[in-house]
Amino acid sequence: MKCMTKLILYGLFLSTLCSQARIIDVASHGVVPGKDSTYALNNLIQSVQDEPDVTLSFPKGQYDFHSENALEMHRAVSNHDNGLKRMVFPLFNHKNITIDGGGSVFMMHGRVIPFTIESVDGITLKNFSIDWKQPFHAEMKVVERDLKKNSAVFEVDEQLYPHIFQHGQLLFDRMGQKDPIGMTIVFDPQTRAPIFDTDKYSLNSSRTKASKTGKNRIKLEGGFKKEPPPIGSVMISYGVHPTSRLCPAIHVTNSKNLQIENVTVYAAGGMGLIVERTENCTLNDMKVTSTKERVVSSRADATHFIGCKGLIKVEDCLFEHMLDDAINVHGAYVPVVEYLGNNEFLCNISHSQQWGLTFGEAGDRIVLTSRKTVLPFFETTITDVRKLNEHRFVMTVAEMPTQLPDVPLSVENLTWYPDFIFRNNIVRENRARSILVTTKGKVLIENNYLSSQMHGILIEGDNNSWYESGAVEDVTIRNNEFVNIGYDNHDRYPVLASPLLKSDQHLGEGRYHRNIHFINNTIKSFNGHMVKARSVDGLLVSGNKIEFSSTYPQSEGDPALSMEYCDHVTIENNTATGFKTELVITESADTTHVKTEQNNGFKNSK
Amino acid sequence: MKCMTKLILYGLFLSTLCSQARIIDVASHGVVPGKDSTYALNNLIQSVQDEPDVTLSFPKGQYDFHSENALEMHRAVSNHDNGLKRMVFPLFNHKNITIDGGGSVFMMHGRVIPFTIESVDGITLKNFSIDWKQPFHAEMKVVERDLKKNSAVFEVDEQLYPHIFQHGQLLFDRMGQKDPIGMTIVFDPQTRAPIFDTDKYSLNSSRTKASKTGKNRIKLEGGFKKEPPPIGSVMISYGVHPTSRLCPAIHVTNSKNLQIENVTVYAAGGMGLIVERTENCTLNDMKVTSTKERVVSSRADATHFIGCKGLIKVEDCLFEHMLDDAINVHGAYVPVVEYLGNNEFLCNISHSQQWGLTFGEAGDRIVLTSRKTVLPFFETTITDVRKLNEHRFVMTVAEMPTQLPDVPLSVENLTWYPDFIFRNNIVRENRARSILVTTKGKVLIENNYLSSQMHGILIEGDNNSWYESGAVEDVTIRNNEFVNIGYDNHDRYPVLASPLLKSDQHLGEGRYHRNIHFINNTIKSFNGHMVKARSVDGLLVSGNKIEFSSTYPQSEGDPALSMEYCDHVTIENNTATGFKTELVITESADTTHVKTEQNNGFKNSK
Repeated sequence: MKCMTKLILYGLFLSTLCSQARIIDVASHGVVPGKDSTYALNNLIQSVQDEPDVTLSFPKGQYDFHSENALEMHRAVSNHDNGLKRMVFPLFNHKNITIDGGGSVFMMHGRVIPFTIESVDGITLKNFSIDWKQPFHAEMKVVERDLKKNSAVFEVDEQLYPHIFQHGQLLFDRMGQKDPIGMTIVFDPQTRAPIFDTDKYSLNSSRTKASKTGKNRIKLEGGFKKEPPPIGSVMISYGVHPTSRLCPAIHVTNSKNLQIENVTVYAAGGMGLIVERTENCTLNDMKVTSTKERVVSSRADATHFIGCKGLIKVEDCLFEHMLDDAINVHGAYVPVVEYLGNNEFLCNISHSQQWGLTFGEAGDRIVLTSRKTVLPFFETTITDVRKLNEHRFVMTVAEMPTQLPDVPLSVENLTWYPDFIFRNNIVRENRARSILVTTKGKVLIENNYLSSQMHGILIEGDNNSWYESGAVEDVTIRNNEFVNIGYDNHDRYPVLASPLLKSDQHLGEGRYHRNIHFINNTIKSFNGHMVKARSVDGLLVSGNKIEFSSTYPQSEGDPALSMEYCDHVTIENNTATGFKTELVITESADTTHVKTEQNNGFKNSK
Repeated sequence: MKCMTKLILYGLFLSTLCSQARIIDVASHGVVPGKDSTYALNNLIQSVQDEPDVTLSFPKGQYDFHSENALEMHRAVSNHDNGLKRMVFPLFNHKNITIDGGGSVFMMHGRVIPFTIESVDGITLKNFSIDWKQPFHAEMKVVERDLKKNSAVFEVDEQLYPHIFQHGQLLFDRMGQKDPIGMTIVFDPQTRAPIFDTDKYSLNSSRTKASKTGKNRIKLEGGFKKEPPPIGSVMISYGVHPTSRLCPAIHVTNSKNLQIENVTVYAAGGMGLIVERTENCTLNDMKVTSTKERVVSSRADATHFIGCKGLIKVEDCLFEHMLDDAINVHGAYVPVVEYLGNNEFLCNISHSQQWGLTFGEAGDRIVLTSRKTVLPFFETTITDVRKLNEHRFVMTVAEMPTQLPDVPLSVENLTWYPDFIFRNNIVRENRARSILVTTKGKVLIENNYLSSQMHGILIEGDNNSWYESGAVEDVTIRNNEFVNIGYDNHDRYPVLASPLLKSDQHLGEGRYHRNIHFINNTIKSFNGHMVKARSVDGLLVSGNKIEFSSTYPQSEGDPALSMEYCDHVTIENNTATGFKTELVITESADTTHVKTEQNNGFKNSK
């Protein structure tokens, strides 16, 4: 009996020990500034894997993490290039762990993924910044150009962007990889943003001849689309697929309750944050921005969420200078190759950057959709998934339709769609869009400053190109400020809501998106665009103010509001000021139940 | 009590069931000729994983295995290129399994590894052949050549070797990969072997301009070392590292009791058979050879064994037309980066094609060696190995020397060296050597026909280039026939025994190899070479007959028998016939205890 009492007391003691958060000073485990701390940190992280409620506390300083001794694993990373990944913070199966950087800089050396977070329940990242000694792009300042010869001379720092020339080709020597110029975009150092109409300076690098003309000087002859970029502008070279998106800054998958607070990402060989199949994510005061020395921050999106659930809440963040969108929240359509019988579908992940994705697991509710219309037709539940390879899996479902229609099919996971709040954030001076969102959850986008080069908010969904699923059901966009959206000078809108269809697809019987409310937003615009919608049932555009902005050359021709194949549309109390003529509202003949009233500065054009 | 009796009876029943070999007709599991059977076979193999003593029996026929639905895994494969591997026979953890092909052809389509055998205890592969619809090299028959312009026109079958031209470069469209010409070698269709002195036709493919001159016609201009290959010869293009050795035919690792009988490998994107860390391997009547339509068989070695133990027995096999050696049996030297203290060594696998290798595990006896001399200096036992990444691991050892010498170190695994019998085999018409062997086990090479383009038997070992370990201790080479060894026209020998040293290394105090007996062999030779030895203690060359062969142009200058830094050498009763002059025996000043007697047709030259 005495023994039993002892055992109970010991049990109580243990459980008390476990429920108290333990704070570990990383310095006492050999993680200190002034040396490569990867090995010591890897060991420390592994040692606390089975201990819940732990804080790893970094005394303020610069910590260097090299790739040589880093733990490695073959990893599929959605929207990136899969492969062997070396990991600085390899967080697997931890429970309630906090990484508190105490204001430190985490400086990466080489091809590493700073944070890998898998099957973690409860994680907080706070108070640090992530940077790389050598970034994943090159910045090339134009110092001379010859319009006639379609050539230019660039200043390229040989220390920061070491490079060689091979058979007239420029190759950047980037952490053990020889990266060709690949994709390019030109930034304007005045605005610190992509230059207006950057496309006209774009470089076909297979058609250019590169040579060294002096210290830190590179000449490129030929290959510029219309002309070489202006003197003083900065051309960014950011490589080629499939070797240019190997290292996001933070990769989270299959986890729960992620919190990021006061974290700055200065560079990334991919996205700042990529999150897969995770429940509840909160970003607060996260920044993706460039250092003073560089124009560009991350190689791809600032943040990206695929197949998540619960709530994604993003507040008080700054996303700027990245080479892709600020945020994208979506699911995945996966095409069916063949129905194998016995409720089994052979499925093929069709977008190369979704290869290896966990589409679903037993218990997930899914829907079969037509690849002709992108519309759903039968809901069922997964009972088993067997992965064959990174491309293919065999999925067994509980219930089957009495007959499968004679069209190409795909599947969509209904269980893994999150609600989404995006509030009080700044997005600016980046390539591409501010926000992409396709989730069936409740979406609120409010009080943001959005100034992107392509669309402001893109609500898309497609089953043939990016395979991003999630026709929306409830989206509110209110009290945002949209500034000079679309300065890539294409047909861009503060809000574009439309599935992306290929020529052999059609919109089908029902509308794709539902209930999009665009309310009380302010738009400063050189092109007079507000909202373009296609296949939306329930569109409210109300109380918005659009003012002319003279920052960029005024565009003409496209309507301010455009509706195609929509239903239940209300456009009311919107005001346009400062434009030469009234802005145009158009609706297609197959758009129904439209109410347009009390709009100032607009005219209808049917 | 009744219940207990029932249990015992049930147990007996189960154990009887388990001890009987079950023969499974694969046809009853959907594995049938005339369709892609990969998925069905993968499933069948997985279903018998926990069932010992099983034979998968294939009714005779051609079975097609495509890559699309194959199980996939990131795999390190020694002496190959690591990466995601798709597997046709994924054999993991099976016990006493037999694959009986019944005389069938296993035809591969795409980048797959036909056999992956890991942690299997007892496996027999028999009665089948492995081939690929599209091989991993291209055969280009010379139909015209212009010596002045250093150019040639080749006939290349567009169906079998589909290709494109890009910026003057020829790229083979090989199962989803665009492979440049890369390495080349010229075969002589008369001998079905590499052409004499093939090096003079070798192509620097970065300096050649490729173009299409008609159907199945490709012109290459420039880049041939001395001249384009002769009309009628066949140039083999076999790609570049690290994408040209992705798919061996059979990969075995960490297994026991492997038996291969009556198996033919007609092609492989790498080696015919690569075996790592496996105990007891028997090959009987294995063939690596080309089909009638092709000149070349495997892209690399016919067979290769690294870090094995027990006995490797190879009998009655035929190895021909491969692009590398017939067999290589060796261990690995792994350099030490740093002694971390606490008996821990940070080690770095230095040859790219050993990355991912299991160097050792707890319990293995190892030796620390100097990287200056390649000589051992302290034996100890591994107590733990922690893998960091494919390059590096941290190894803990039981005992440490009192002081570590101030030289670069490496480690060698003493536990994993096999005995080796190579008997009654034919090796011919291949690029490179017949046999490479560096093992501390007992070696017997007898009654073979060996006719390779480089050395016949190479007993090397090096710590700076290939990192192949295993100074030999007991090698007998007897009653073999060596025919025209060295027709690449370099300084080749039927037997070369010498560690490979770099300029900053030296031979050290002791001899590296020991006890090599070369007895009663017959050598037909155009160059008069027999044995070259360096750093060997105990060399017996006895009763061998060397006859002049006129097949290739007679070479001059190098000695028939050459000894450098050897000890305890006996050269006796050897006969040379048919050569213009007496063959030369040389020994260096630091060679000691040499006995030379009763040799006919030889002369000593000190």
